Amino acid sequence: MVKALTFDVFGTVVDWRTSIINEGCLLNSQKGWCIDWGLVADEWRAGYHQRIDQIRKKQIPWQNVDSLHRDLLDDLVSRYGMRDLSEGETDQLNRVWHRLNPWPDAVDGLRQMRTHYTVAALSNGNMELLVDMAKNSGLAWDCLLPAGLSGHYKTDPEVYQMASRVLNLPEDQIMMVACHPRDLRGAKAVGMRTAYVHRPLENGLAVPFNPAPNEEFDVVASDFVDLARRLRAVNS
Amino acid sequence: MVKALTFDVFGTVVDWRTSIINEGCLLNSQKGWCIDWGLVADEWRAGYHQRIDQIRKKQIPWQNVDSLHRDLLDDLVSRYGMRDLSEGETDQLNRVWHRLNPWPDAVDGLRQMRTHYTVAALSNGNMELLVDMAKNSGLAWDCLLPAGLSGHYKTDPEVYQMASRVLNLPEDQIMMVACHPRDLRGAKAVGMRTAYVHRPLENGLAVPFNPAPNEEFDVVASDFVDLARRLRAVNS
Repeated sequence: MVKALTFDVFGTVVDWRTSIINEGCLLNSQKGWCIDWGLVADEWRAGYHQRIDQIRKKQIPWQNVDSLHRDLLDDLVSRYGMRDLSEGETDQLNRVWHRLNPWPDAVDGLRQMRTHYTVAALSNGNMELLVDMAKNSGLAWDCLLPAGLSGHYKTDPEVYQMASRVLNLPEDQIMMVACHPRDLRGAKAVGMRTAYVHRPLENGLAVPFNPAPNEEFDVVASDFVDLARRLRAVNS
Repeated sequence: MVKALTFDVFGTVVDWRTSIINEGCLLNSQKGWCIDWGLVADEWRAGYHQRIDQIRKKQIPWQNVDSLHRDLLDDLVSRYGMRDLSEGETDQLNRVWHRLNPWPDAVDGLRQMRTHYTVAALSNGNMELLVDMAKNSGLAWDCLLPAGLSGHYKTDPEVYQMASRVLNLPEDQIMMVACHPRDLRGAKAVGMRTAYVHRPLENGLAVPFNPAPNEEFDVVASDFVDLARRLRAVNS
């Protein structure tokens, strides 16, 4: 009797890598740069993961994702030689994470699932970022649950428990949806149901896609429209 | 430089009294009752205010609005002689607060304001209630901020400060929108801007409407479409 679906966002709902490459290529042509934005996107994302882990281990103080992205960007700006970037332009580039494009199936699939479930973003992204992203892309969330509401980042159990508390639902009536087995295992550890969505292109074409074993999760789907269909089948 | 509008919900966005009367009249005809649902609605709402104040003064323990409404309803059921009401029907009636209808201008006005501002519900209602209400009525919020996230109820300053923290905006970049001067004074006390919306019919035709003095608030509007227009005028 699942009543709410909580969604990982970066990678699961939106294609961060292509979105950054697209904006970066535009900057290349405006500024006369020859920067490999696939590399920039991958480094930016890897830096994010590293910082989140350091915050989770209390090695560095809490920082929201916007501020953490900005620190990482300042380093990328100098290392990749992004010349002639004003403060306003740097801030605008940092906010590319507010403008990430959804995977082609995400808006429609979410709309379908919303008619039967409460659909909530359960993301490490801060509220402002999630609000802008939804506005920009037409993602029709029922509510946004930034991890920061719990004072923790995924995959700390406190984040998933916060969702259960705020939605006023026991953990086993909530299904976590993600393309990252690690996130799903964190949700499963507190008693939530899990749906694994394949996003084979999250890290680009050059990285081979190795899906996690099917039997580990309650539902496995190829995209959000497929997930909506599978959830309808379970309920009928 | 207001960036976000936070809205009181009961009374300001939705017409709780008429919604309850409409559902109650339907029950009257189904059950053969002759109950005055205007009285029920007014008592239910007065009981809510009393309980919220007791929780704020720590005279009684925290309760969410659904549970508080249910306790009050159980008393109304026996006092008004609502015979033959099953547990399922009582729960369904209690959830009338999840199905309150917006004032005629609210959905369109909110949609207009959403293009320029982050629009957030800042309500004593719990998350589940606010999610159902938005789904049911087509209110297109950017995010829902139930007071419970702060562990307090309005007009405690902690509620307004929670909005500022979660939205990552200083208080003076947030405007509280409400038809209740008390709520606006609470917001003003922590440094937020204020918009007073007239809802002369909130308590029915029999109660004369005495608007608060105009000069107390930053903006005064006759409804949400008027508020959207006034905010555009301020910004252009």
